[in-house]
Amino acid sequence: MRIDLNCDLGESFGHYRVGDDDAMLGIVTSANVACGVHAGDPVVMRQTAALAASNGVAIGAHPGYPDLQGFGRRILQLDAATLEAYVIYQLGALSAFTRVAGKPLVHVKPHGALYNLAATDAGTATAVARAVAAFDPALVVVTLPGSQLSLAARGLGLRVAHEGFADRAYRKDGTLVPRNVPGAIIHDPDVAARRAIQMVAEGTATTLEGETIPLRIDTLCVHGDTPGAVQIAAGLRARLEAAGVAIAPLTETSAA
Amino acid sequence: MRIDLNCDLGESFGHYRVGDDDAMLGIVTSANVACGVHAGDPVVMRQTAALAASNGVAIGAHPGYPDLQGFGRRILQLDAATLEAYVIYQLGALSAFTRVAGKPLVHVKPHGALYNLAATDAGTATAVARAVAAFDPALVVVTLPGSQLSLAARGLGLRVAHEGFADRAYRKDGTLVPRNVPGAIIHDPDVAARRAIQMVAEGTATTLEGETIPLRIDTLCVHGDTPGAVQIAAGLRARLEAAGVAIAPLTETSAA
Amino acid sequence: MRIDLNCDLGESFGHYRVGDDDAMLGIVTSANVACGVHAGDPVVMRQTAALAASNGVAIGAHPGYPDLQGFGRRILQLDAATLEAYVIYQLGALSAFTRVAGKPLVHVKPHGALYNLAATDAGTATAVARAVAAFDPALVVVTLPGSQLSLAARGLGLRVAHEGFADRAYRKDGTLVPRNVPGAIIHDPDVAARRAIQMVAEGTATTLEGETIPLRIDTLCVHGDTPGAVQIAAGLRARLEAAGVAIAPLTETSAA
Amino acid sequence: MRIDLNCDLGESFGHYRVGDDDAMLGIVTSANVACGVHAGDPVVMRQTAALAASNGVAIGAHPGYPDLQGFGRRILQLDAATLEAYVIYQLGALSAFTRVAGKPLVHVKPHGALYNLAATDAGTATAVARAVAAFDPALVVVTLPGSQLSLAARGLGLRVAHEGFADRAYRKDGTLVPRNVPGAIIHDPDVAARRAIQMVAEGTATTLEGETIPLRIDTLCVHGDTPGAVQIAAGLRARLEAAGVAIAPLTETSAA
Repeated sequence: MRIDLNCDLGESFGHYRVGDDDAMLGIVTSANVACGVHAGDPVVMRQTAALAASNGVAIGAHPGYPDLQGFGRRILQLDAATLEAYVIYQLGALSAFTRVAGKPLVHVKPHGALYNLAATDAGTATAVARAVAAFDPALVVVTLPGSQLSLAARGLGLRVAHEGFADRAYRKDGTLVPRNVPGAIIHDPDVAARRAIQMVAEGTATTLEGETIPLRIDTLCVHGDTPGAVQIAAGLRARLEAAGVAIAPLTETSAA
Repeated sequence: MRIDLNCDLGESFGHYRVGDDDAMLGIVTSANVACGVHAGDPVVMRQTAALAASNGVAIGAHPGYPDLQGFGRRILQLDAATLEAYVIYQLGALSAFTRVAGKPLVHVKPHGALYNLAATDAGTATAVARAVAAFDPALVVVTLPGSQLSLAARGLGLRVAHEGFADRAYRKDGTLVPRNVPGAIIHDPDVAARRAIQMVAEGTATTLEGETIPLRIDTLCVHGDTPGAVQIAAGLRARLEAAGVAIAPLTETSAA
Repeated sequence: MRIDLNCDLGESFGHYRVGDDDAMLGIVTSANVACGVHAGDPVVMRQTAALAASNGVAIGAHPGYPDLQGFGRRILQLDAATLEAYVIYQLGALSAFTRVAGKPLVHVKPHGALYNLAATDAGTATAVARAVAAFDPALVVVTLPGSQLSLAARGLGLRVAHEGFADRAYRKDGTLVPRNVPGAIIHDPDVAARRAIQMVAEGTATTLEGETIPLRIDTLCVHGDTPGAVQIAAGLRARLEAAGVAIAPLTETSAA
Repeated sequence: MRIDLNCDLGESFGHYRVGDDDAMLGIVTSANVACGVHAGDPVVMRQTAALAASNGVAIGAHPGYPDLQGFGRRILQLDAATLEAYVIYQLGALSAFTRVAGKPLVHVKPHGALYNLAATDAGTATAVARAVAAFDPALVVVTLPGSQLSLAARGLGLRVAHEGFADRAYRKDGTLVPRNVPGAIIHDPDVAARRAIQMVAEGTATTLEGETIPLRIDTLCVHGDTPGAVQIAAGLRARLEAAGVAIAPLTETSAA
């Protein structure tokens, strides 16, 4: 039993600071690093890549919509060719800093609105997958199990890592319960840890209605910028390890 | 006798179009492609790299200050580490598109205010050279002969290509006469072509005052966005070839 | 019989130039000036406002989505409060330059994707109308006849000017035939002029299918950045005047 | 004895939050609100203006260089006309929100690198002063005593409020000791408060070398985004009031 822990990092911008990247890099095994478009800037990217490298954390790109003001959380209506070019741009920009840090770029996880739309919209998913395939077909695409992006990436021969959320409720079809639905967010770290262990150990999740569904995941998303994020993440890791789950980056997991 | 002809290209942005890149890519042998920071955007970068590749034109990065409104022509006071990170970022972003186009990134020529400041300011020159060395020490740095950037790049073991301007007057010390000085700009294409041939064939230039100075260059800058640019560039190339000068990219010239 | 001629102007940005604003300001009676968000910058805004003022052309704001790369032609998913604030911001920024030019801000015409979405989406229309009402309830809102923005603006007690397009085909319900439908764009200036005169003189339009529908308009949109724009606009104005139509800004038309 | 307390506010941007504006607006009497260029965005500007209005705090514009990544703390080489237009733009944008909040725009205090350069460089000072005079000659310009901006603003007939810093050491000529000089920053709130009272009550300051120099000020700068900012500001206000100093906005002080 092994799992990757991934976290969005490098989302500070100039004077503006978010998250405790230093602490999170001591806990997780994969860093999704913002690419200077929805968040991050060249200085932050360089520092984050270097810090991840020195912590032995695998580095991935976290491309988003070109909308700093909206932090990449608002959909911007892009045609497929434009979106593809934007993603290639971000992969290239971040890979410069992994290269300078002496490490490979390992994975790609879209950010925010792009993550969500690529999960449900085939056109968006295809544009993202095509960008990855064009830039480097060895990269691992991180997305929801059963998502359009999972299909599109596999269709192009890319490796895919499926992501689970310990602190989010699931619906019967394996999708996440929207945040505004009561019960969508699991606030109790113990409950979240038990759910994570269930996903990893049994390959299942319990839905909001109490049903057990299959849910095979390769990586667990850990939040880095919410109140108490570091403690929650450290607690989750400790509970997983206590349950006999090895924490290891994607390259060492079988699923990717 | 051989020389490279380089031109700044890919400087359109979204709806805004500048230059006739298509025509210029049929004339020059090296393209300095904007990196989406002072000009260019991901779609333009991809198209420009692909077009250069299909024309057999060597592709270089044309990094600039993060100032789209000023087109990279205004100095922005950056500390060395920040400037270095900005240049790495731009090298990475553009290299993604050369990679997708199936071609190597060959050279780096800073843009506008960064070009000028890196020529005269040792700190700026060092930051640019360090960025290139950190990203890819095989890249050729394009700059003025005798410039601070030439010194800094060589000091870090980088290859340097020295650039000449057929349509600009020189001072005794080999620097360019500032644009606002009468006689600084040579408007007659025949005179400019003769000056280019003199640089290439004899390794000298004639100053504004009429003196002959040594000026060894590896590449000639050709403008792509001025009125009549395409005709002037084509004429210069024809005159050089008629004088027995081979036009070839930097990788094939001895000096680089 | 009188009509206002309006044109989008001030859409240059820094080094990037579009349109022949100088010539267009000699033809139209209302200028929709970009506000530095989807296009335009402070220098361009100041120059455009000053030039419009000296030509006796009424000045309006042309707010758009914060998306320079997309020239405001891509929908950005904004919540109502955010959109309202963006529009207020742009009204204020432009009004600074009308104030400096010694002229009032007269009207507001949303740009591109915001124009289109405000015409059909009630939430977007309400946000735009609320921004105008909050900033200055004396401003005239320019939009399509029968649009959601027309309804929303009138609902808040704002004055509305309805806009017609001489070079666009109409559907039976008074909406525009989408650009990608054959026959949607009228390329013959004579036909366009006749259609304009029909709208102004008879208050009707002929649909793509040949039916006559009522279409009462207060202003005609004239393009400033298409090939031959200046000649087409001048020709339209001449033909309207030859047909006895007075060309006058919105403030002097009855409908506003 | 009366003094204004001013604070830079509204410097959050989208997802990025800085400062506790809510708390600071309960302490200060003037708010310098960022204008969406070096910091702030339309939503933040609207909220800040509304919050200041409801707290009875006078609202001023805090224009800066167009450099979000550098938070306006890096000099951008702008010609005078461009800088003037940028400042007018920002005054207009912010005034839209004071208008919507039902309050007047009272003052202008340049931000960061623009504040510093306008204090020492006559060209920059003149451009800022000209922008204010063109937009609204009733605005109060906030700057250092004896600065170029003070001279330029008075020269154009503008009202000027001179600003003091309780937590900064002064040199004999009345300028601030640069931050990197030992002793430049006064960390002890009691010492800072005594220095503030000295400035207000006696119109003098004690230099780093111990000399007493004249220093007449109209407003004291209070920081809103440093650790412990709210407590320090509240303590300063309490100490000033305990010393018999009335805290009142600029419009009610004699000096402005």
